[in-house]
Amino acid sequence: MAELSVHSVLVTGANRGLGLGFVQHFLRMPKPPQWIFATCRDPKGQRARLQCIGPAETADPASIKAAAAKVEEHLGGSGLNLLINNAGMAKPKTLEEETLEDLTETYTTNTVGPLLMGQAFLPLLKKAAQGSPGSGLSCSKAAIVNISSIAGSITSFIGWESVQCVSYRCSKAALNMLSKCQSLAYKEHGILCVALHPGWVQTDMGSSAGQVPPLTVDDSVQGMLKVLSSLSEKNTGAYLDWEGNVILW
Amino acid sequence: MAELSVHSVLVTGANRGLGLGFVQHFLRMPKPPQWIFATCRDPKGQRARLQCIGPAETADPASIKAAAAKVEEHLGGSGLNLLINNAGMAKPKTLEEETLEDLTETYTTNTVGPLLMGQAFLPLLKKAAQGSPGSGLSCSKAAIVNISSIAGSITSFIGWESVQCVSYRCSKAALNMLSKCQSLAYKEHGILCVALHPGWVQTDMGSSAGQVPPLTVDDSVQGMLKVLSSLSEKNTGAYLDWEGNVILW
Repeated sequence: MAELSVHSVLVTGANRGLGLGFVQHFLRMPKPPQWIFATCRDPKGQRARLQCIGPAETADPASIKAAAAKVEEHLGGSGLNLLINNAGMAKPKTLEEETLEDLTETYTTNTVGPLLMGQAFLPLLKKAAQGSPGSGLSCSKAAIVNISSIAGSITSFIGWESVQCVSYRCSKAALNMLSKCQSLAYKEHGILCVALHPGWVQTDMGSSAGQVPPLTVDDSVQGMLKVLSSLSEKNTGAYLDWEGNVILW
Repeated sequence: MAELSVHSVLVTGANRGLGLGFVQHFLRMPKPPQWIFATCRDPKGQRARLQCIGPAETADPASIKAAAAKVEEHLGGSGLNLLINNAGMAKPKTLEEETLEDLTETYTTNTVGPLLMGQAFLPLLKKAAQGSPGSGLSCSKAAIVNISSIAGSITSFIGWESVQCVSYRCSKAALNMLSKCQSLAYKEHGILCVALHPGWVQTDMGSSAGQVPPLTVDDSVQGMLKVLSSLSEKNTGAYLDWEGNVILW
């Protein structure tokens, strides 16, 4: 299988957890990207383990546009190969405890953010696709990767007994729909789009249900990068887990 | 097949379109409900063809609670058998035209509203379930019916070429997830929950794509009521069209 080989990548929510894991894995590659852009909501936050180029509040249109302008400036004429929409949030509540505010905040972060990021970085993603040789789609050429969750699957509905998290489930089902829409809208521009379930990972979010998740950040990110390196045109619009298995919507 | 026979029903978005169709069909039944509560966002609106008990802004917690209190008062000790979350909106835009504001408004109306309605009317739905003889679930006993759309199906993804409507598709995928969650949360209370696709109907919304939809409001509503009358415990959490066909998520 070909190694993932990108000139530039942007990871949202990169100050900790899976986002930080992605950045670390990119840095450790035999041929690391020339540009790794890391954004996060709170660049100086207590739990931040990486200083990001932010601020990029991933659901604030102005902040996103500012980040896109900054990235464009750095890239100096070349495009962005890979946009990893990793930023996300979850509040473990029961259905009865959900509020308008929590539902809106979760949707804004988990669903609207990735849509606005796709809009803002479309010109740079297009440019990367146009600048890459060959037809067909690949993550080394130009791609949007939405970090979703199996919690967004209605068909493979799991975990209700341990955590209801309706606002999170709804936002991830909507994110899956968005990925499908992006794959159709951006295919003609040479951009591959995919929704990934990272597994149940030892992050702050993964551990919030009170149990120790089985997967390390390293294993999850390594798996997802391997999956990304294997994707081609036929996989755009897919919903896959960190091992490459197809998940039903 | 048993006729749908309810003591009380509440329909949101009842001033026109499918909501008004539901009210008219209930009134025409051989044994009409004793109580038909019709709510709508704009009771005095130009296009309103029915004066509603509103205002019930279906995504404003205070407005919903006020409506629930009013309904409880009218019911005088009995429960609410049927909650039809019909209110919805769509703005036909392309992916690139979507904005934070539109995405939020559409989600709030189409997804958050039905969740908050379920929370607020849960005590009355429970009461109806407790007051009905027999075990098992049915729409004549106690049910939440979420008017979804096939546009919320990622598996049966259709219509992209004629209308992108990403905010609408995302909100309906999320509504489908909500229906599944409600079915699990409310089963123990004796409440059946289902997501229905009404078909492509001759309403203001259905006609907004610039073509004449094939289905009349009458045919759609008649079909949905027949489907509702046929549902039992094994159907809770289902996603069905107006003819009773299962739709994949």
